[in-house]
Amino acid sequence: MTSDGVGASVRRSAEAAREAARVLALADRAAKDRALLEVARELRARVPELLEANARDVEEARGNLSAAMLDRLRLDPARIEAMAVGVEQVAALPDPVGRVLSDAVRPNGLRLTKVRVPLGVVGIVYESRPNVTVDAAALCLKSGNACVLRGGSESVRSNVALGRALRAGLDSAGLPAGSVAVVDTPDREAVAALLSLEGLIDVVIPRGGHGLIRFVVEHSRIPVIRHDVGNCHVYVDSRADLRMAEEIAVNAKVQRPGVCNAMEHLLVHSGAAADFLPRILGRYRAAGVELRGDAAVRSLAPDAREATEEDWSTEYADLIVGIKVVPSLEAAIGHINRYGSGHSDAIVTGDPAAAEEFLRRVDSAAVYWNASTRFTDGFEYGLGAEIGISTQKLHARGPMALEELTSVKWIGRGSGQVRG
Amino acid sequence: MTSDGVGASVRRSAEAAREAARVLALADRAAKDRALLEVARELRARVPELLEANARDVEEARGNLSAAMLDRLRLDPARIEAMAVGVEQVAALPDPVGRVLSDAVRPNGLRLTKVRVPLGVVGIVYESRPNVTVDAAALCLKSGNACVLRGGSESVRSNVALGRALRAGLDSAGLPAGSVAVVDTPDREAVAALLSLEGLIDVVIPRGGHGLIRFVVEHSRIPVIRHDVGNCHVYVDSRADLRMAEEIAVNAKVQRPGVCNAMEHLLVHSGAAADFLPRILGRYRAAGVELRGDAAVRSLAPDAREATEEDWSTEYADLIVGIKVVPSLEAAIGHINRYGSGHSDAIVTGDPAAAEEFLRRVDSAAVYWNASTRFTDGFEYGLGAEIGISTQKLHARGPMALEELTSVKWIGRGSGQVRG
Repeated sequence: MTSDGVGASVRRSAEAAREAARVLALADRAAKDRALLEVARELRARVPELLEANARDVEEARGNLSAAMLDRLRLDPARIEAMAVGVEQVAALPDPVGRVLSDAVRPNGLRLTKVRVPLGVVGIVYESRPNVTVDAAALCLKSGNACVLRGGSESVRSNVALGRALRAGLDSAGLPAGSVAVVDTPDREAVAALLSLEGLIDVVIPRGGHGLIRFVVEHSRIPVIRHDVGNCHVYVDSRADLRMAEEIAVNAKVQRPGVCNAMEHLLVHSGAAADFLPRILGRYRAAGVELRGDAAVRSLAPDAREATEEDWSTEYADLIVGIKVVPSLEAAIGHINRYGSGHSDAIVTGDPAAAEEFLRRVDSAAVYWNASTRFTDGFEYGLGAEIGISTQKLHARGPMALEELTSVKWIGRGSGQVRG
Repeated sequence: MTSDGVGASVRRSAEAAREAARVLALADRAAKDRALLEVARELRARVPELLEANARDVEEARGNLSAAMLDRLRLDPARIEAMAVGVEQVAALPDPVGRVLSDAVRPNGLRLTKVRVPLGVVGIVYESRPNVTVDAAALCLKSGNACVLRGGSESVRSNVALGRALRAGLDSAGLPAGSVAVVDTPDREAVAALLSLEGLIDVVIPRGGHGLIRFVVEHSRIPVIRHDVGNCHVYVDSRADLRMAEEIAVNAKVQRPGVCNAMEHLLVHSGAAADFLPRILGRYRAAGVELRGDAAVRSLAPDAREATEEDWSTEYADLIVGIKVVPSLEAAIGHINRYGSGHSDAIVTGDPAAAEEFLRRVDSAAVYWNASTRFTDGFEYGLGAEIGISTQKLHARGPMALEELTSVKWIGRGSGQVRG
């Protein structure tokens, strides 16, 4: 397709989504839940169609993608069933729309009510995993938002097939099929076109690697909620319970190293280093973690590479850890605020004053005392869902679920009040 | 100054603000209030210095600015006193920082608390009126934010002098003077330089005309909260109390026509037109309002100009009104959602069902039933302050006060929890 053609096609999808959003914003909970259950039914009914579309994506991607990426792209009956179950879980969540945030009668008799309303049209730009198509569309639908979805070019056939299931489900429930648009052109210009549709799309949520986030932030005229890298830290204080510290430092690094709330760098107070480092280095070696460290760490671990300045700012998203010995709590906080990405950082200590100092001064979306950084997650936080983890301060910070997909509206009910 | 010099100078101010923000974020309410009272004292002590700086701005602007703009630029002792009183009022408001938004113990024993924290560094880009310098800095200080202020080039000497008073007040109270930076170069490049400082400035709030807002939205890499135009409507329904409708339509248009919550266009149901139009046209003529209208209006008012398609999208911000007769509530809602700017819109009706339909379906920050659009205001809403009125849906919508200058932080306190 020509570049103009791509732009026009994305614009048409967004215009249809805008129209649909007006209807969806007024739909009651029952109608939205009915549509979600119909979507789950459609997904189960379309397993052969979905697998066939996905097989063509996988076939074409073979040779271009790593084995890990190919695995993320692949659908199977169990993964499709998991998507359907996920959609049913979203149906069971409370509806954020219409919730009253404040309600007061002003001295002049004007009654002023602040209520939650949908954002309108949400653009989501993501990579690889086709399940994001269904998860994101379900959360948008539940919160009364239309959405324009643009997944990775390698998964376009899978996403288009999933989009058909989503639209069929909406249609069966009497809601506009245009509420969910899947951008079906693999061209990169489609992303740029989407980011230019100010006035049609209300917010863009990018989900993926740092390169994608940068591209979206630099090109978008639409407000963006970024779900950026997680360069997370665990700091083991001089007064830490070292057994607890060991379990937290292992869990945060090893349990699922590829995700954004995994720990990348471990800071150890010099007063705890002699006891703690040998223990944790042994655990990391046993778990196959590549070690990088400062001079103090390398004097105990000749197998550790020297950590460079660049290391401290890096999200490895892999079984690699950077370890540094710090002289004080102050130095740990300074290091995290300088090199961290403001995602999730933890202190392990038995000293409540040190803990509270850390919790107050580390400027991150989530800070923990004696717990793993891995808890930063919409489900773990009891939000029932997650559309991303915001690393910015505006609108939403930390795990984003249904409430974060809403805005507010002020409603004034009067009896002829005018301003004096 | 060279373009590079301007950029470097703005960057240095922002870096100092970033440093100061770390201290300010941790300052308690007493320290911040002390600083605000010191600022009020400094303003009163510096009246001669402020008037002298302002006189030079006014002298230079004479001939380039309209009389109305010159008046907005001018300071006098009463206006300086009003600024000082405004700062004292901000000191009396509750501190939003540290407020607990949720606090729960998860099933695994992790206690999770969501608290308000400052945004960090707020950039404010505005025009003309020097009092914005003091109002904005006071609200940022109270909410624990540092700020970088860039006012209009015509008021640069006044703003720099006000900045000195602000910094002296901070310093007297033991808080970092770098918390308030006034960009002192009149060059336009200073705005572009400010908008490029992603990572140093957390949010930009533009306040001013549509041209300024567009420039900021198009050039900023920093998240923007826009305070855009107000193309506000009053719709007089077929079942309106026409005396009430008259008072509301006059108040919304005439009481202060230059502000963003003033009405620009009046929609009248065809069933009410024959009774209502002659009355309201008479009132508008008496108030010196220029009339523009559709054919139905012009048949009753030969002095009305024909309203063009462009009229319906225009914020006059002046004593001009566009009037249209509509066949139904549906048509009124459609017109407002198509041509309006999503700021403030009102229905006058005695029919609760029509009112609720309007309140639900008009997609604006503030919607009113039987009240003037002029109430959209932080003070009228009981927020105690106003840094702007957001016309976007992200982060804040409608009047913005102290809470809207904060973000959140999630604090997890555990006893060794790891993720399974």
